[in-house]
Amino acid sequence: MYDIIIIGGGAAGMSAAIYAMRGGMKTLVLEKIATGGQASKTYEIDNYPGFANSPSGPELMQEFAKHAIKHGAEIRTEAVREIENIDGDIKTVKTRKGEYQTRTIILATGASPRKLDVPGELELAGAGVSYCATCDGAFFKGLDTVVIGGGNTAMEDALYLARFCEHVFIMNRSKNFKASKVLFDKVKADPKITVYTDMVAEGFAGNGKLEQVLAKNTETGERGFINASGVIIAIGITPENTIAKKYGLELCERGFIKTDMYLATNIKGVYAAGDCRVSPLRQVVTAAADGAVAATSAINYILSR
Amino acid sequence: MYDIIIIGGGAAGMSAAIYAMRGGMKTLVLEKIATGGQASKTYEIDNYPGFANSPSGPELMQEFAKHAIKHGAEIRTEAVREIENIDGDIKTVKTRKGEYQTRTIILATGASPRKLDVPGELELAGAGVSYCATCDGAFFKGLDTVVIGGGNTAMEDALYLARFCEHVFIMNRSKNFKASKVLFDKVKADPKITVYTDMVAEGFAGNGKLEQVLAKNTETGERGFINASGVIIAIGITPENTIAKKYGLELCERGFIKTDMYLATNIKGVYAAGDCRVSPLRQVVTAAADGAVAATSAINYILSR
Repeated sequence: MYDIIIIGGGAAGMSAAIYAMRGGMKTLVLEKIATGGQASKTYEIDNYPGFANSPSGPELMQEFAKHAIKHGAEIRTEAVREIENIDGDIKTVKTRKGEYQTRTIILATGASPRKLDVPGELELAGAGVSYCATCDGAFFKGLDTVVIGGGNTAMEDALYLARFCEHVFIMNRSKNFKASKVLFDKVKADPKITVYTDMVAEGFAGNGKLEQVLAKNTETGERGFINASGVIIAIGITPENTIAKKYGLELCERGFIKTDMYLATNIKGVYAAGDCRVSPLRQVVTAAADGAVAATSAINYILSR
Repeated sequence: MYDIIIIGGGAAGMSAAIYAMRGGMKTLVLEKIATGGQASKTYEIDNYPGFANSPSGPELMQEFAKHAIKHGAEIRTEAVREIENIDGDIKTVKTRKGEYQTRTIILATGASPRKLDVPGELELAGAGVSYCATCDGAFFKGLDTVVIGGGNTAMEDALYLARFCEHVFIMNRSKNFKASKVLFDKVKADPKITVYTDMVAEGFAGNGKLEQVLAKNTETGERGFINASGVIIAIGITPENTIAKKYGLELCERGFIKTDMYLATNIKGVYAAGDCRVSPLRQVVTAAADGAVAATSAINYILSR
């Protein structure tokens, strides 16, 4: 019988494991693929406070795993298939390999940016192709960059980059921008930003690092290149919410798990941490903080029953 | 003219500086004493994810400062005396040495645990005397420990420690416990916890590390010793809210700054991060996450105006 089962072995899950183990809880981390989550797909992490040497994502996530294991966390590579009695005092988590009983569950299942699915995207990810301006924008200082998307995030990203990049090109697939008028007006007024409408990216090219975005005008069919050293693909982020959906956790309209300040969900004994929850910012450090809060809340729940 | 002035150079302030600088913002950190905040008074930090080697507080905070400085943050050792036009588009922050204009302010002024102010408390802090069970409880595994206080935190701390300590003694200065009945009942039912009422700690003794708590019964006047390797002093935490109070920021009844999810306060362009705000947990990692969120919100505020 476990006190806490953590589903997901990214930054949030590993941090939750550290806090749970230090709290003397019998803890199991279930990770379906490999620990590290979204961060481990990141080339360089320059903003996790304390790591001034800018480790790679896999390096930093290895330190997280090492830390959790040092405190005795049990980590299994098993995908959760079913949860029985999720709102009961004793919940049963089932994988292909086994059944585990637990008092509490922390969902740290993460999220992933929506992909364009075009040639060069995967190959140049982390080498100019990025999905997060806050994470990677600083690497593009003084360079030409492209932002793909038409929503608030895309506009914010463009304004953010325009502060320190040489020039920013926005590409939006239609003439309609989902972004708020205020933001869009700011973008249009910024001399360092050029907005292209009816424009899609058909691919990314470059020798080891991004050099050109292959663009197509969807109205005229015309094709061309935009020279750029960085591109932010800001077309949305998809939470991994299969379990949350299946078992009736309250979600926001975009599919992220709703929690209170203590990261409790609407189901007693079930918490959510990291990118999968409704959150103001999705970074390694916010995921790590979430893990700490969720584990502490789970501990307090167990101790007060 | 600054974009962001951060008041306070602890974990929250340093993290905010990293995010602000990476966002291309002209940023100033004002710290009245020395960077590092509360954490730098901590002997060993075992739960900041990624640092499995358990650095000392000063060591970890030096890494934070190094990280902020690497990104070009300007840090000045100056105490804020006054803020003019705090709700204006341009705010003026005054210290004894100068006047600084800024668009936004992040208050990262911290908090500190209430002290007992008895002999040995300062001398043995970090060597058995602690103010945070979540932070330091794990160092007392298998040992006898004392919890001082009668509120919910003290009861939660005692239950938390009882999971892995040899025995836990609670000392409360009166017969009245502020803690909720549910928690107090759990405490009384726990065979590993002994509750002493009308009992105050008059001092702490030990050769380099805590060995004995000097206790006095306030009813009988009787004095005695409790042998213990760890003590958690859980008699409250005081936010540093002088500025917040002076300029009309909304506070909770305990004096912590109220924010929304984006860490915005009730005054436009003013944010709060870390221990000084209403928060579910006060740890280095939560302060660091707060700094990232507050800086990102300040950046978005500046960019959208």
